[in-house]
Amino acid sequence: MTNWLQKRVRLSPKETALVFEGKIETFEEIYQAAENLAGKLFFQGVRKDDRVAILGKNDRLTFLLIHALQQIGAETLFLNNRLTKKEIAYQLENANVKEVIVSDIFLDKVNSGISYTELIQVEYKQPDILTTWDLTKVASIMYTSGTTGKPKGVIQTYDNHWWSAVSSVLNLGLTEHDSWLCAVPIFHISGLSIMMRSVIYGIPVYLEEHFEEEKITKMLLSGEISTISVVTSMLERLLRVHDGGYHSNLRTVLLGGGPANKATLEVCKERNIPLVQSFGMTETASQIVTLSPKEALTKIGSSGKALFPAEVKIAADGEILLKGPSITPGYLHNEEATKKAFLDGWFKTGDIGCLDEAGFLFVLERRSDLIISGGENIYPTEIEQVISNYEPVQEVAVVGKADLKWGSVPVAYIVASEGFNEADLRTICQTNLASYKIPKQFVLVESLPKTASGKIKRNQLKEN
Amino acid sequence: MTNWLQKRVRLSPKETALVFEGKIETFEEIYQAAENLAGKLFFQGVRKDDRVAILGKNDRLTFLLIHALQQIGAETLFLNNRLTKKEIAYQLENANVKEVIVSDIFLDKVNSGISYTELIQVEYKQPDILTTWDLTKVASIMYTSGTTGKPKGVIQTYDNHWWSAVSSVLNLGLTEHDSWLCAVPIFHISGLSIMMRSVIYGIPVYLEEHFEEEKITKMLLSGEISTISVVTSMLERLLRVHDGGYHSNLRTVLLGGGPANKATLEVCKERNIPLVQSFGMTETASQIVTLSPKEALTKIGSSGKALFPAEVKIAADGEILLKGPSITPGYLHNEEATKKAFLDGWFKTGDIGCLDEAGFLFVLERRSDLIISGGENIYPTEIEQVISNYEPVQEVAVVGKADLKWGSVPVAYIVASEGFNEADLRTICQTNLASYKIPKQFVLVESLPKTASGKIKRNQLKEN
Repeated sequence: MTNWLQKRVRLSPKETALVFEGKIETFEEIYQAAENLAGKLFFQGVRKDDRVAILGKNDRLTFLLIHALQQIGAETLFLNNRLTKKEIAYQLENANVKEVIVSDIFLDKVNSGISYTELIQVEYKQPDILTTWDLTKVASIMYTSGTTGKPKGVIQTYDNHWWSAVSSVLNLGLTEHDSWLCAVPIFHISGLSIMMRSVIYGIPVYLEEHFEEEKITKMLLSGEISTISVVTSMLERLLRVHDGGYHSNLRTVLLGGGPANKATLEVCKERNIPLVQSFGMTETASQIVTLSPKEALTKIGSSGKALFPAEVKIAADGEILLKGPSITPGYLHNEEATKKAFLDGWFKTGDIGCLDEAGFLFVLERRSDLIISGGENIYPTEIEQVISNYEPVQEVAVVGKADLKWGSVPVAYIVASEGFNEADLRTICQTNLASYKIPKQFVLVESLPKTASGKIKRNQLKEN
Repeated sequence: MTNWLQKRVRLSPKETALVFEGKIETFEEIYQAAENLAGKLFFQGVRKDDRVAILGKNDRLTFLLIHALQQIGAETLFLNNRLTKKEIAYQLENANVKEVIVSDIFLDKVNSGISYTELIQVEYKQPDILTTWDLTKVASIMYTSGTTGKPKGVIQTYDNHWWSAVSSVLNLGLTEHDSWLCAVPIFHISGLSIMMRSVIYGIPVYLEEHFEEEKITKMLLSGEISTISVVTSMLERLLRVHDGGYHSNLRTVLLGGGPANKATLEVCKERNIPLVQSFGMTETASQIVTLSPKEALTKIGSSGKALFPAEVKIAADGEILLKGPSITPGYLHNEEATKKAFLDGWFKTGDIGCLDEAGFLFVLERRSDLIISGGENIYPTEIEQVISNYEPVQEVAVVGKADLKWGSVPVAYIVASEGFNEADLRTICQTNLASYKIPKQFVLVESLPKTASGKIKRNQLKEN
């Protein structure tokens, strides 16, 4: 297929592509800026099929860099900027990247790499821009931890992104006045998928560095925004700062990244907020099961149905299984994990759910122990492994506790021997774990509740 | 991919699928009716991969039969019901069909076949419905004549239809209130593509047996219709019977099947009619170059740009070349014609055009001698061959003449020897040619104007 951004420029050069900090840029302008950056990357030696990491925040330059790397045909590893230096180092090594491009404010998180400032200053060398794209090629890689605690690099091909965007449009529709507000991280699939849709649909991305509920509320009231992606904690913050509906141009508030409680959903219904629940993950290139706008307010609590090209079914043990062209071909350099993730061609989500008789999916339980904090997935195993490395810790179990701001936060239950010192443990955690993963509380206990077979009863700890 | 109709039923069973003669049916109801018909076809011995012809008109049963054949996985040959018995016989034999299903009113057009009435009366036998579809499979076959005069069977795969529908939605958009009025023949790609989009988008088809301008006008004024496909002559008839705009819910009047004159386009602009010009053909599974709604009124006369997954370019000799996933893999049982139709992967339309500097396509001339009459393509060669068979004809040339109702009609210029009798010739034409192909006038001339190399100067004849 033709290079998407080039094709978009040919179709609608003068339409708005990006609105960031009040600056409006057209697809033509975005392309020119991305091409210029591609020339600088080219000068730096970045070539087709090279794997390049980006460590940045939601800003114009990161947005352009993503496009620039795609123009050259490099694979992009998206680094979560909240991770520690150690966590980042693991991903860079595991992915075996050729180059790391780092926003200046995150330079202390990497041992080496080109800063944004350095990159802008290098010469421009006419880059080899791909005029056509092989859609089976890797577009992006994003690490997720999963139950084993070892982060795995999820591969997303151009095909995955294409089908995700097309699937979504067949459900949510598309109008000439659409625009998508992106206040979720573009290093996560929730944000990157908005960028991809923007190019495929020809609609503007309103990019926000942070989710500031007052500012976002103003934008939703202005009529400029048709669609916004939110996670539960964002939605709850929005509902708190403004107690009415929004502009009638806002036609979709797409909720992903974990379930909302019934009360929140009811409030949205009362206020006539066009909330559309969805279910998806990095491995499915964003939403793959979504409510339709028409059913959004009548099927409260459901994540919807599998989008047109996809399928969902429930395994005998209750696990949610998915099939469809937006699903990852597998994990980078990890055939074993890839093999484990699929069952007869169906992707195993690890989540538990059921389908009602009309075929609507209800997600009952996320991967047994998953903690979703402000839209970030936290896997207790990863935290437990770090804590276990502190000698005085004999046993540890991390569980999520309800939190007004973040939805849920991790708490560690520890059986310790003499010499245990919380300050020391906290330091270890700070070196090894992104701050959102660090337990908000370390609770010393005599013993951990266990089943007869010795498995920790996490549910019992949660109820403490 | 999942069987599209089954998937659609699971996604939106209660949404309207078909409105025909005032009867409203949901996707669930359509599916049940199609499944029932599939059972009767199954009883008749129709199986997966069988090639079955349909000779019908735009009505509920033809609509259901098309779905029924797809459910079984049979290939459908669409017969133009305006063709003569002889023309139909050629297609049936060339395509080597297993079965012909014929609307009772057209029974005299075939030697054998099952009538709709007979089919309805046979037993139901539990059919093998395909739950998943291999998109590379042949969905439909439609014959077009082309310059050689010999009709060729254009193959359309499920992939072709899928990409066509997706390409269109990325350009025209999609809303919850969409519906598509189909008063173009469903045996042509213009009509069939509406049926396919209906299933993929989940929107109703308002099916009309004939294009009755008064009735269509009422429908466009009612607010029920968001989109209608028309050919030039239909548009002109609409403009004549009603001299204002339509309901604001009408958001697209998709014009295909030949160019409209500037005056017509200007009238649409004045009346604020959301006309969207397009360019496409049986070989591209309908529109492939289309204006965007935003540009429709500012780029009058242009057919637009190639849809997102497609490309258009102009060959050195001015021929319009196309590339994209909605383009036919080729002609049935005709490798030679298939080979001739492509140049380095580009489909040769035979039409002449140019791109302006912003990349908009202007179709300057249809395949040199093509006559478009009420949306039907007429190839002079085919008519000339029939006329030549009448002994007293020494030379003949058929050209199109402007016509108020049909846009253009064929006229034959003949150099005859003694014994020529127009009544006899007319009888020969009636046996061999669909009525719309029969010249409206036979003009006897002393000689035909020719170039130095002996080629007939058709343009000079047109100017007569």
